[in-house]
Amino acid sequence: MLRVGVIGYGYWGPNVVRNFHSLGSAKVVSICDQSEASLRRAKQAYPDVHVTTDCSELLSSPEIDAIAVITPVWTHFDLARRALLSGKHLFIEKPFTSTSQQAEELIELAEKRGLVIMVDHTFLFTGAVRKIRQLIDDNTLGKLYYYDSMRVNLGLFQHDVNVLWDLAPHDLSIVDHLIGQKPEAVVATGAPHLNGLADVAFMTIYYPDNVIAHLNVNWLSPVKIRTTLIGGENKMLVWNDLEADEKIKVYDRGVNIVGKEGVYDLLVSYRSGDMWSPKVEATEALKAEMSYFVECVDKGQRPFNDGLAGLRVVRMLEAAEESLKRKGEAVYA
Amino acid sequence: MLRVGVIGYGYWGPNVVRNFHSLGSAKVVSICDQSEASLRRAKQAYPDVHVTTDCSELLSSPEIDAIAVITPVWTHFDLARRALLSGKHLFIEKPFTSTSQQAEELIELAEKRGLVIMVDHTFLFTGAVRKIRQLIDDNTLGKLYYYDSMRVNLGLFQHDVNVLWDLAPHDLSIVDHLIGQKPEAVVATGAPHLNGLADVAFMTIYYPDNVIAHLNVNWLSPVKIRTTLIGGENKMLVWNDLEADEKIKVYDRGVNIVGKEGVYDLLVSYRSGDMWSPKVEATEALKAEMSYFVECVDKGQRPFNDGLAGLRVVRMLEAAEESLKRKGEAVYA
Amino acid sequence: MLRVGVIGYGYWGPNVVRNFHSLGSAKVVSICDQSEASLRRAKQAYPDVHVTTDCSELLSSPEIDAIAVITPVWTHFDLARRALLSGKHLFIEKPFTSTSQQAEELIELAEKRGLVIMVDHTFLFTGAVRKIRQLIDDNTLGKLYYYDSMRVNLGLFQHDVNVLWDLAPHDLSIVDHLIGQKPEAVVATGAPHLNGLADVAFMTIYYPDNVIAHLNVNWLSPVKIRTTLIGGENKMLVWNDLEADEKIKVYDRGVNIVGKEGVYDLLVSYRSGDMWSPKVEATEALKAEMSYFVECVDKGQRPFNDGLAGLRVVRMLEAAEESLKRKGEAVYA
Amino acid sequence: MLRVGVIGYGYWGPNVVRNFHSLGSAKVVSICDQSEASLRRAKQAYPDVHVTTDCSELLSSPEIDAIAVITPVWTHFDLARRALLSGKHLFIEKPFTSTSQQAEELIELAEKRGLVIMVDHTFLFTGAVRKIRQLIDDNTLGKLYYYDSMRVNLGLFQHDVNVLWDLAPHDLSIVDHLIGQKPEAVVATGAPHLNGLADVAFMTIYYPDNVIAHLNVNWLSPVKIRTTLIGGENKMLVWNDLEADEKIKVYDRGVNIVGKEGVYDLLVSYRSGDMWSPKVEATEALKAEMSYFVECVDKGQRPFNDGLAGLRVVRMLEAAEESLKRKGEAVYA
Repeated sequence: MLRVGVIGYGYWGPNVVRNFHSLGSAKVVSICDQSEASLRRAKQAYPDVHVTTDCSELLSSPEIDAIAVITPVWTHFDLARRALLSGKHLFIEKPFTSTSQQAEELIELAEKRGLVIMVDHTFLFTGAVRKIRQLIDDNTLGKLYYYDSMRVNLGLFQHDVNVLWDLAPHDLSIVDHLIGQKPEAVVATGAPHLNGLADVAFMTIYYPDNVIAHLNVNWLSPVKIRTTLIGGENKMLVWNDLEADEKIKVYDRGVNIVGKEGVYDLLVSYRSGDMWSPKVEATEALKAEMSYFVECVDKGQRPFNDGLAGLRVVRMLEAAEESLKRKGEAVYA
Repeated sequence: MLRVGVIGYGYWGPNVVRNFHSLGSAKVVSICDQSEASLRRAKQAYPDVHVTTDCSELLSSPEIDAIAVITPVWTHFDLARRALLSGKHLFIEKPFTSTSQQAEELIELAEKRGLVIMVDHTFLFTGAVRKIRQLIDDNTLGKLYYYDSMRVNLGLFQHDVNVLWDLAPHDLSIVDHLIGQKPEAVVATGAPHLNGLADVAFMTIYYPDNVIAHLNVNWLSPVKIRTTLIGGENKMLVWNDLEADEKIKVYDRGVNIVGKEGVYDLLVSYRSGDMWSPKVEATEALKAEMSYFVECVDKGQRPFNDGLAGLRVVRMLEAAEESLKRKGEAVYA
Repeated sequence: MLRVGVIGYGYWGPNVVRNFHSLGSAKVVSICDQSEASLRRAKQAYPDVHVTTDCSELLSSPEIDAIAVITPVWTHFDLARRALLSGKHLFIEKPFTSTSQQAEELIELAEKRGLVIMVDHTFLFTGAVRKIRQLIDDNTLGKLYYYDSMRVNLGLFQHDVNVLWDLAPHDLSIVDHLIGQKPEAVVATGAPHLNGLADVAFMTIYYPDNVIAHLNVNWLSPVKIRTTLIGGENKMLVWNDLEADEKIKVYDRGVNIVGKEGVYDLLVSYRSGDMWSPKVEATEALKAEMSYFVECVDKGQRPFNDGLAGLRVVRMLEAAEESLKRKGEAVYA
Repeated sequence: MLRVGVIGYGYWGPNVVRNFHSLGSAKVVSICDQSEASLRRAKQAYPDVHVTTDCSELLSSPEIDAIAVITPVWTHFDLARRALLSGKHLFIEKPFTSTSQQAEELIELAEKRGLVIMVDHTFLFTGAVRKIRQLIDDNTLGKLYYYDSMRVNLGLFQHDVNVLWDLAPHDLSIVDHLIGQKPEAVVATGAPHLNGLADVAFMTIYYPDNVIAHLNVNWLSPVKIRTTLIGGENKMLVWNDLEADEKIKVYDRGVNIVGKEGVYDLLVSYRSGDMWSPKVEATEALKAEMSYFVECVDKGQRPFNDGLAGLRVVRMLEAAEESLKRKGEAVYA
């Protein structure tokens, strides 16, 4: 039975607590938050759990095996470092840290002490991303051409980070997971309209072999869109995460090169066949992720969404931030 | 009665001829194309019109007042120059020319001789763009925040230009028309997958006052999308050009700044009210444009989609091409 | 503080309990269910509430002012009658009773003893139905032409009633509320495919002045549809209850009679203007209904969704059942 | 080369003429219409074709092998009868005739003289209906449960017939083709709102073995809908004829009976798997139908959309008309 202390009981924390609770293999023994109101909510829902505003209690408690850090990103490094130094395993909200240097330090620390770090890249545990990964692994899509995502809605404005740090980590963790290569360069553009931080932003990630990823993130959209196009040599797909059913549609469409006439005259033929919408598992992603965390701790196993995965995402964010400042100049990751 | 010679009777030329014909105020007297098959089609549809493979006949004919150039972009400059030198008014396909220098030369030539140049920015004559322009002009949207367009589909591959030169001119002419300011910088990214020319590309245009435009163009998408988001301080809209009805939806949504607490703590409130889909005129855009061309020639009036408008679009394309080569480095227009 | 006893803690009961709890003005003091598992769930969620499998405890308790009956329809009459005989106010699931005779008896009983009966026609408290009612009341739609609803999905099969008794009460309560007239005749058709009870059915309700309502209910549809068209002389609307935003779209479309030529030649002109999607309140309908129940009891006021409203729905169901048996023969209500 | 005379050059006639023309195997030699304006349009499009306002010319001409009757239904019988008596083959608009008696008389006449009658049930030649037929024939859907169609839009009002005669023949011809059985009973309901003829109507057709068809037709809908659900034991499909791609979606969903507990307790399990959208041929249906007509005449072959198919549709319309008058009373076909 893994004994977990949870720091941060705001928007996402309650989901983390609820899912740890629902596993038979872990229990939340202590919850810390700065807000008394949050702690009252926690106490009401889980009368048996200890609550406190002092996170040192959790970090130093011998009754706790693992710490879940579900707080704003600028607090991550300090809390994570103290947790690791106290010998606790770490489940931590994304983005992992504010800088890649911090991430590297935490990874090294965990390495030395044999502790598990799992970064909460929840989307990797959804039925949709698992299905897409499978369609890539079994070569249904064929050689990848591009990943193009739109993740826009009205709000929720963050005060400390721009829209890239808020919305892009979702797609960056997915892109990292699906493409599995080191980016060659990152380009970002965007503009601030309200509080001096970009609230509309676009990001391109160049990968080897002309694979390209593009992210469109926006806090000022009148409508909510969560749509991703993925193009491959054999097939292409549309993933609409807002669809209740039919989240993924796989199209038997594409272009075949059928010849060349002279220098410019590429002869192409278009393929247009059936569409197919595979059933996507509807299980709760966070629960699957948490179960995997417990399993990794138990077996001393390194999760695929480990500190290094978190670091890769932070590096792309850093590069994007830098490129954004220079109005789109490519930053080599 | 304006006497028109049309050069180029491929994909778009027949629409130009048909619409000139349907006006009472112009008539097509001669059609030129390199393809005998195209000329046969022209002859069958318009038995009274002279057809030829030799465009000099049209360019030098004293029976012709205006030349419509509906050919690939790399042929534009030479044909347009000869037409203007022969004293003909000019209706010319977009993009205007292959380089801004060519465009400047043509503009100067027309200026000296008092000739009209109209660049075929058809979209500006659609009911949808006219309605959006009106919503901006009457301050319904309020101060503009962004223009974000997605224009993707499978094919049609061009052999001589990349996807930016093929698909972006539509949005660039619209952006130029709606925003009405000089761009500060252009950033483009993209990748080639089939014939060495970018078939997936993304373009950001920076305007003064943090107004930003973004274009997503793609020849390798499994689905056809023609959707544009436009954000303003008062209202925001979604323009879906594939909708039969309800092409434009105006949302009474947005963010109001209601206060500030300390440095970072911007207090915002979200506005979420009715949605409204104004009726959009369904008249054929090309016919309206052609009628306007005849009117401009008659009255010696300069059209708003004149050579300068064409030049502004070509400059953005040049800048994008340059930025694309440098992997997103901002090019100052 | 209204003291409520809830009988039935299956699918819907927990929502009723939760909403009574969330009001400041009522409290659930006792919950009864036949299933020990259900009672355990109730106890876990509300440790302070008394639970029992014996409903007599609730029905006879002097500590209880009102009984909520949230059980299958065939149990309604007996439980409701006992509750009223014990002087309890009554909140009861729809459909009110299995027969109109039972409904009449309960109404009379409540009348004599000055007790409130509220039938749980929850949809009348949704933002959507309230908005539609308002559009009718303020004559936006004009004279009503028709109400045409489609309510189909896969399952949930009921064992004791056919699809009409399961799905139609929603629309019947809405139709009764919106049209506010006595039906002239009811026609129903349908067919059974699995267990001898109709799982696909269609129902037409004739109202005075050619107002017509039509319901399409189906347990065997591959997709879930909840769409209603409402036609009026001035405007028409589409209500799609599965839309997150834009549940209601009001169309400025219609037909105007502009003249007559001879006997048959009605000259009509079509009107096609803007579409408008009014904002619909997102408050929980059940909570509003419950608050209204407490208010009605407090003030001794008769709710609009009283026993008579319940009776009117049951009468339409009885007529539909009868018509279904006779393959569509009109049954005069 | 089949020589065709076409009577009626209003809305649909030009499509018939154009498609006969595009075949290599037939030519339209003569066109008749009452309207001089229509004949001018015909002459302009087909300068070589003889035009006339006197249909006797066509009916008696020895130069004509077949007559296409593309006129209002009340004129069908007389024109068709004269054509057959003159020994012409017959292509005739749907619905075939105004009464089943007329249809029977025409069938008998054609039979005696060895002439082909083809009723223009165009939908049977669309890629969508052909694909659905195939999914039924190869048992993909399994035993049929129901066919449920919605065919609504604003206008176009007919002056001589109600909405059933105008819109239902499409679905009736499809239902007849797909189900291929004799209906047991027909029920229709509806109401008139403008000119005394039903403009909103609903029709149920009972087939053996609990197969049921339902049609929803409406001239007063604010939106255009062309959606049909077809339920089968193995799979279910949705046909949305307004979709450019993905007209047909086949769902691997359904209900399995897994056991019975006692009298009422049917145990069912729900199946929910992949969705699949087969590619649907995009060829013009009318052209395929016309080509088939020429082939049937050439080979002396009876088309599947012959006079008997036309008669079956007319019988269902007659029954529906009768049922509508009696407010839904089942009429036994």
